[in-house]
Amino acid sequence: MRTKTPQYSEKMLEAAGRLFGTRRFHEVRMEDVASEAEVSKGTLYRYFRDKNEMYLALLARASRQFVGELQDRAAVPRTARGRLVAMVEAIIEFFDSQPHLFDLIQRAEIRRELGEAFPWQEARDVTLRLAQEVFEQGQDEGEFVIRQPELAALMLLGGLRAVIRFGPPRHAGLARDLVNDFLEGAAGRSNGDGR
Amino acid sequence: MRTKTPQYSEKMLEAAGRLFGTRRFHEVRMEDVASEAEVSKGTLYRYFRDKNEMYLALLARASRQFVGELQDRAAVPRTARGRLVAMVEAIIEFFDSQPHLFDLIQRAEIRRELGEAFPWQEARDVTLRLAQEVFEQGQDEGEFVIRQPELAALMLLGGLRAVIRFGPPRHAGLARDLVNDFLEGAAGRSNGDGR
Repeated sequence: MRTKTPQYSEKMLEAAGRLFGTRRFHEVRMEDVASEAEVSKGTLYRYFRDKNEMYLALLARASRQFVGELQDRAAVPRTARGRLVAMVEAIIEFFDSQPHLFDLIQRAEIRRELGEAFPWQEARDVTLRLAQEVFEQGQDEGEFVIRQPELAALMLLGGLRAVIRFGPPRHAGLARDLVNDFLEGAAGRSNGDGR
Repeated sequence: MRTKTPQYSEKMLEAAGRLFGTRRFHEVRMEDVASEAEVSKGTLYRYFRDKNEMYLALLARASRQFVGELQDRAAVPRTARGRLVAMVEAIIEFFDSQPHLFDLIQRAEIRRELGEAFPWQEARDVTLRLAQEVFEQGQDEGEFVIRQPELAALMLLGGLRAVIRFGPPRHAGLARDLVNDFLEGAAGRSNGDGR
């Protein structure tokens, strides 16, 4: 039996990602993925036993990409506020570029009760932890004090999820506006910049 | 053929709600619901063609209950801030009392792509609208001004969803703390009450 190679697997998952991005989940058949990836059905099934295993692999790949992207982007700015803005920006852009991801996550979350893996958990944990690390930096450097860090991180990230899913078209400076509202309050002091 | 009565349907949905609250979705069989409701399987199937139709009816019922509860509770306080706290409290209590509801909503949302009804939409719309009405009241009465009402409502309600799903054990005054953070900011001015 031939060995599996990461490059080959990557090629198939990329094809699967393109299809899930343009069709509904139940409309994507394994043979469509094989044809999109230009491999035989036999090869596809050698890498992924079934559609379920393939989409879990796709979600694990998205989770790794997301975590990498988030950590890279959050590391750039110097201030804690800047890092929060960079995080929020990275999250919005990632999900906007892969709108089918919510659906994959919800599916995986439901199948979790059947004892299946939930590959998005890592992304969720890392994001919450990173937000709280940035809060600590803000406090250590005298920039701001978050009174209830665990709750605040959940409010920020959960709120962001709703904005991405249900919010109006993005405007320039959206991430900064959201972080300002988060830190100073949605009814915060007017900061005189005409918002 | 005998007619269907709302009372009878209610009795079966209550039984279904109890079962979904204590078992995993795929573990609940129609015959378990019939037995829990003390009706025959034939009667249950006369009201609900299958498990899917039954859980959509359950979700529609939860949506009506949620909307009624939310509107009643939000109407009590006089100030806009008080009304926001009452809303947040009502939402936390409702979901805490029916922890299986998230799962039902996620399932229904996924099946929506198959063209099925999504009975939770009403609850989502009403909650967002109510939050924005309370923001307007706050502005009209000079209590506070929400600079970006649509985004702010999504941040508040989406954040609340994350707190309910993933947050630490509830503490007394949680709803008030969350509303304070929302209005004045997670890093808002210390209000001197030792938080």
